[in-house]
Amino acid sequence: MASFTIIENFEPIKDSKMLDKAKSFNRELFKKTVNPCRIIKGLKIDESTKRYVPNELIEIEKMKDIKLQQDENIIIDFGNHFVGKLKIKIAHSGSHPDAPGFIKLKMAEIIDELAADSSNYEGWISKGWIQEEWIHIDEFPMEIKLDRRYALRYLQLDVLATSAKYKIYVEEVSLEAESWIDFKDNPQLKKVQDKELIELDKVGLRTLRNSMQNVYEDGPKRDRRLWLGDLRLQALTNYYSFNDLELVKKCLYLFSASKFPNKSLGACLFVSPEVQVDDTNLIDYSLIFISTVYDYYEHTKDIELVKEFWEVIMDQVNTTWEFLGEQKMTNLNNDTFWSFIDWNPELDKNAAIQGVYITTYKHAIYLANVLGKNTDAKNLEEKINLLSEVAKNNYWDEKQGLFVSGDQKQISYHSNIWMVLSGLFDQEKNKKILKKIIEVKPAIKLKTPYAYHYFLEALFLNDMQEEAVKIMKYYWGEMIKLGADTFWELFDPEDPFYSPYGSSIVNSYCHAWSCAPTYFIRKYMDK
Amino acid sequence: MASFTIIENFEPIKDSKMLDKAKSFNRELFKKTVNPCRIIKGLKIDESTKRYVPNELIEIEKMKDIKLQQDENIIIDFGNHFVGKLKIKIAHSGSHPDAPGFIKLKMAEIIDELAADSSNYEGWISKGWIQEEWIHIDEFPMEIKLDRRYALRYLQLDVLATSAKYKIYVEEVSLEAESWIDFKDNPQLKKVQDKELIELDKVGLRTLRNSMQNVYEDGPKRDRRLWLGDLRLQALTNYYSFNDLELVKKCLYLFSASKFPNKSLGACLFVSPEVQVDDTNLIDYSLIFISTVYDYYEHTKDIELVKEFWEVIMDQVNTTWEFLGEQKMTNLNNDTFWSFIDWNPELDKNAAIQGVYITTYKHAIYLANVLGKNTDAKNLEEKINLLSEVAKNNYWDEKQGLFVSGDQKQISYHSNIWMVLSGLFDQEKNKKILKKIIEVKPAIKLKTPYAYHYFLEALFLNDMQEEAVKIMKYYWGEMIKLGADTFWELFDPEDPFYSPYGSSIVNSYCHAWSCAPTYFIRKYMDK
Repeated sequence: MASFTIIENFEPIKDSKMLDKAKSFNRELFKKTVNPCRIIKGLKIDESTKRYVPNELIEIEKMKDIKLQQDENIIIDFGNHFVGKLKIKIAHSGSHPDAPGFIKLKMAEIIDELAADSSNYEGWISKGWIQEEWIHIDEFPMEIKLDRRYALRYLQLDVLATSAKYKIYVEEVSLEAESWIDFKDNPQLKKVQDKELIELDKVGLRTLRNSMQNVYEDGPKRDRRLWLGDLRLQALTNYYSFNDLELVKKCLYLFSASKFPNKSLGACLFVSPEVQVDDTNLIDYSLIFISTVYDYYEHTKDIELVKEFWEVIMDQVNTTWEFLGEQKMTNLNNDTFWSFIDWNPELDKNAAIQGVYITTYKHAIYLANVLGKNTDAKNLEEKINLLSEVAKNNYWDEKQGLFVSGDQKQISYHSNIWMVLSGLFDQEKNKKILKKIIEVKPAIKLKTPYAYHYFLEALFLNDMQEEAVKIMKYYWGEMIKLGADTFWELFDPEDPFYSPYGSSIVNSYCHAWSCAPTYFIRKYMDK
Repeated sequence: MASFTIIENFEPIKDSKMLDKAKSFNRELFKKTVNPCRIIKGLKIDESTKRYVPNELIEIEKMKDIKLQQDENIIIDFGNHFVGKLKIKIAHSGSHPDAPGFIKLKMAEIIDELAADSSNYEGWISKGWIQEEWIHIDEFPMEIKLDRRYALRYLQLDVLATSAKYKIYVEEVSLEAESWIDFKDNPQLKKVQDKELIELDKVGLRTLRNSMQNVYEDGPKRDRRLWLGDLRLQALTNYYSFNDLELVKKCLYLFSASKFPNKSLGACLFVSPEVQVDDTNLIDYSLIFISTVYDYYEHTKDIELVKEFWEVIMDQVNTTWEFLGEQKMTNLNNDTFWSFIDWNPELDKNAAIQGVYITTYKHAIYLANVLGKNTDAKNLEEKINLLSEVAKNNYWDEKQGLFVSGDQKQISYHSNIWMVLSGLFDQEKNKKILKKIIEVKPAIKLKTPYAYHYFLEALFLNDMQEEAVKIMKYYWGEMIKLGADTFWELFDPEDPFYSPYGSSIVNSYCHAWSCAPTYFIRKYMDK
């Protein structure tokens, strides 16, 4: 399923006041020079994990001794995942170069990316995402300062051409890492002693930092862009770690600065060369804007900000309400890209979406009461009652004790998680549902840390911390066992190379919707 | 035959006085903005020539209308061959780009280069010579100003990746052409009326202009470098056309600024990042330095310059004389790269080299007399007598009326041309030899315009203008029929894709050792 939408002659509404507010937060990113820590010569497959690992490690001091001829390569390891710009100085040895050198640079977040040959890539998502560059060297030594920004731990240099008269080597290489957050700012856990949890927190924190750039990027390798669903989870984790309020506000203003013609917020936003909403509308992402403001208020009690966004919030309520039509429920399949929930093409999303409606409308009521918007609150309450009624009648299967979705009465994690989160039932019943879903292990699995986040949230909110920790260790812990320096966009422990894009090369391996462990550990366990 | 030499721990002699003199000629190149004249959509093979030709031509005004998706391409035609830097502005149409664009640019001197796939290139000469670049476009529109200089008529843009949401197109493109010679300087023929000759002259003149950069480059695509044998022919053509003396002097000083440890001049020179002689010594190229100074004196009567170079000239005489050993002749095969003469691996070069010795030593005597260096002149005369004696005894085959070379008594154009040029015999006998060689058509053919140049010289000097013109029209004329905008480095009319490098993609298609028609037409026919 190629998941994108295209709207012909799309003309977003611009709000220049919101845009100016967003721009007022612009500032220089923090920088840090990172030197490589070791050299990798060749890769091999680890038979137990089926993933690539270094074949041979060489001390970084010997980098200059590695003279490369055509068809040879060197892999430079920066020791961890960073986002930034590369400088590399290439020198020669042997006779004076009598022909241009020609090299290919590959920048990789995980080692497996290095082993993939991009020329064979045939996924539906653009090949342009693969981080690689081809460079001719007319004069040696050449200091190459790459303009583009990369997300990487590994840099592979392939020599595509020298001449018979000379070899080339890397004389210097460094990475200027960039982040919205000061690299000195490294908030530690206070009480948690469990080493696995400490490690999960650390990797989550790095994932968040590396995705905090001029906006909350979904992933600094791909899409390097602001998505609403991702923003909420990143902001939440940020409140319990770096606690930077400016970038959250900047992103809320940005979303409000360019909207769909019907005032619905887009699922994602381009910020360069100009701010423009993507012509992609996902019903759950529009709704989650409400929760993002709700979370911000809960964290800061900043009533002024809620006031500023109240109109936008009510626009989201109204446009999403209209979307439901007479039945007060969706009844859509995956032929179009109308909602997200998870990257699982088998999932029937209708029940889960109903849960998102109720959950986020409840956040809207809460904020309406904060602002004393009684009419809005009353109106919202009526809507929630209707939605809840429809949910119970259409999605609840009393016999199975689970929510089901669609004509096939599909049982999925997603439907049950979101219905639990919506608070349709009380905690006792919710606990039963969650235990049941763990027991049943539906074939329709959670495929992304994004979807898993809401699973954890449902568990923590319903006093099931033990199960939540088990899942964190099983799911996020498995990524670490496979070598993750930052948490991945997509992961199925039973199918580690899963990709909805046609190839795992284009998966993002630092994706901030996957920071959940840092958020939940700090919010619920480290106090 | 991979033709290069490598000398370990090569330490050239530097002459900083000569270097400073060379540097005193440094100046800005002349520039000219060139706009494209048409678009080519697709290529097809012309069955008669087996070369690629445009499939469809589109007016340049429609360039922006050609929206390209992945795997499509556009070919931009600048209408003629130029050397310079490219600017290209890439825009998008459709939805806001949601992924980086990824394009490949190919710059080609002739259309056939576009059809070749460089990833299949396996020649022995560096793949780094192939003019192509891979570029990611993170933001649209993107103005790409390429740092490298190219030699091209055609620019092909291949779209390697867009996303499903947008297409790309070329909004603007231009080429800033560069030359040592002012683009306004366009010396015309005065008397010649023959249209074929006028055309030959024009193409030769363009070839020369495009190779006159900061030095006399052999070819602006490859090697972009100063070679001694090439310099002589370029300087000669220049005297009869642009008549720029500075670049000739600059190049003579450059060659004298970095020499072999035994004071021999190298076959070629690197000028960047610093001036350094290549560790390649070709006996004929060292000798031709003498003739290059001789030609300069003949053209300018500048006795001061001859004085400055006299020591270097005598160094060439002495080192080449030592190289001959007791026999006063070479007896070497092609296993090493010791002389050039032509790109023909079948050629036995020994007789031709003997001819080069005698020819160039005679130029040295002439200059010795100009300077009143009687001892040197006497010494040179003795050497020439010995060499001539050896030549007659070893290479002249009275029965066949031709010179032969090597154990197999090989008959080649080359041996006879150079022996004729050496003036071993009188004009009457030389004419017979030249007629005989034309009649015999030896299997060992001339493969480069460089070797053909000396064939023309032998003919013109021996009053055989008619045959010379026939050869010009046959050989250089055939290149024009095949679409040459500038004359090629290599050409065999019976084997048009001939390359000594393993693939004709890396042949140079603007190579100034092939300007001969311009030189000979202007010197002998346009007065």
